[in-house]
Amino acid sequence: MNIITNPQQLQELSTQLKKDQVTIGFVPTMGYLHDGHRALLRAAREQNDIVIMSVFVNPLQFGPKEDLASYPRDFEHDKQVAMEEGVDYLFHPAVEAMYPVQMSVTVKVERRTDCLCGRSRPGHFDGVATVLMKLFHLAQPTNVYFGKKDAQQVAVVDGLIEDFHFPINLVAVNTVREEDGLAKSSRNIRLTPTERQEAGILYKSLSIARGELIKGNVDVEALKNSIIALVEKESSGKVDYFEILTYPQLEQLKERTGKVIIAIAVQFSNARLIDNIIFELSNAPR
Amino acid sequence: MNIITNPQQLQELSTQLKKDQVTIGFVPTMGYLHDGHRALLRAAREQNDIVIMSVFVNPLQFGPKEDLASYPRDFEHDKQVAMEEGVDYLFHPAVEAMYPVQMSVTVKVERRTDCLCGRSRPGHFDGVATVLMKLFHLAQPTNVYFGKKDAQQVAVVDGLIEDFHFPINLVAVNTVREEDGLAKSSRNIRLTPTERQEAGILYKSLSIARGELIKGNVDVEALKNSIIALVEKESSGKVDYFEILTYPQLEQLKERTGKVIIAIAVQFSNARLIDNIIFELSNAPR
Repeated sequence: MNIITNPQQLQELSTQLKKDQVTIGFVPTMGYLHDGHRALLRAAREQNDIVIMSVFVNPLQFGPKEDLASYPRDFEHDKQVAMEEGVDYLFHPAVEAMYPVQMSVTVKVERRTDCLCGRSRPGHFDGVATVLMKLFHLAQPTNVYFGKKDAQQVAVVDGLIEDFHFPINLVAVNTVREEDGLAKSSRNIRLTPTERQEAGILYKSLSIARGELIKGNVDVEALKNSIIALVEKESSGKVDYFEILTYPQLEQLKERTGKVIIAIAVQFSNARLIDNIIFELSNAPR
Repeated sequence: MNIITNPQQLQELSTQLKKDQVTIGFVPTMGYLHDGHRALLRAAREQNDIVIMSVFVNPLQFGPKEDLASYPRDFEHDKQVAMEEGVDYLFHPAVEAMYPVQMSVTVKVERRTDCLCGRSRPGHFDGVATVLMKLFHLAQPTNVYFGKKDAQQVAVVDGLIEDFHFPINLVAVNTVREEDGLAKSSRNIRLTPTERQEAGILYKSLSIARGELIKGNVDVEALKNSIIALVEKESSGKVDYFEILTYPQLEQLKERTGKVIIAIAVQFSNARLIDNIIFELSNAPR
């Protein structure tokens, strides 16, 4: 495995790879890798000739109240994971290499952001879109990999790729779950043993809501309220949001067909957990 | 020569060309081609295996008070010029093909715009950057060609390419001039015969200012005022701006070295003419 820190060098490499008609799978990360990242890396490894992973904690996507400095980092561990998962090139640039001068052009994500986690993180997705626009031009991937767990991020990247015709295929990888359905996350270790027992309710609540929608339950507001009540009865967590939206537009449901996302965020004593499911809603009640 | 109207088809073509290790020269235009465009096409033809030209009147770069509908168009003539200049692929999409849905991500040019022509055209360069970001991903050029006559546009594109690491080389082609130095432009035919005689003063004024700067004239404000007075004495035109700035940053001169642009815009009775020169200012007075 090669480690690259110079953006120019990564671009020269990817330009050469494209000439060699090699497919490039790209997994952009902020490091501190866990099983969810491994699932992305495995999908990339299966589907491409060459796998590039970036580890870059992007300052632009942190808000003024979010602590960039305390974001967890462990590059030695990340390197180990990358090697185990067969990464060919690990891109690990310094902040100054990615943002050498004040930018003259900025990008703003105008839609798909004023809901779910985006509502409480203004500017976050502008930073995500900016760094991805850079990374996409440096790595020049055939396929790029994101986890469905961050469904809003997938929706934003989908818009970015569509809007600007990036010649890149977006692959959204299924969420990896524990036996009780809890989505794997590095935050799960911050749950108390009792909270960990309760936390299975997140995925269960999504499944119940999906069942109701498929059955033809049309009162979305009432459904949301009953699910929130259920989650707060079955756990000590506080529901931050429970939303049912179109996907990937992330707009209020108007029709009873098409792709739908049900998403939840629950605040426990020392960890805020998120989860979602995305599925096709068919017109015919079953 | 092939005419392509479908963005997807252009991207498939350029993807294949890149695999074939072919160099692509790209000349984006709004059509109504004149000698300045021919100079771009010739440079592209000389320096690349394949030449792609786009003819697309981009609605996003027109302000609410600027008349998109009356923008001159003559596609038959443009096609003729393209064939004469050896264009391989002429890309001529419909507006709906370039902007099929409301965009979820927008770009904003934050710098290099609040001066020269940009000052009177708020939002103009946002539209330019947006369409170029699309076109660059569709044509995937090795080299892209712009005229130095639109120096501010070149500066903005330079920033766009740098900021987002586009794997594209920007070629700024010298302004084509008449014998008296007047920059060629389709607007020149709107000058009265007397104005046409006077219009040589634009380039002459730029040359005088350059001479003064090189000689070591350090009072930029006084120099600007004396040049404006000269132009308005020697012609019936009204000077809209006469600016001396760093290039490509388009900031006020602080040091006496580095790249400098001197730019002028003059309003005649029925035509607003612009011109500029860009040169290296050396510390040592000559």
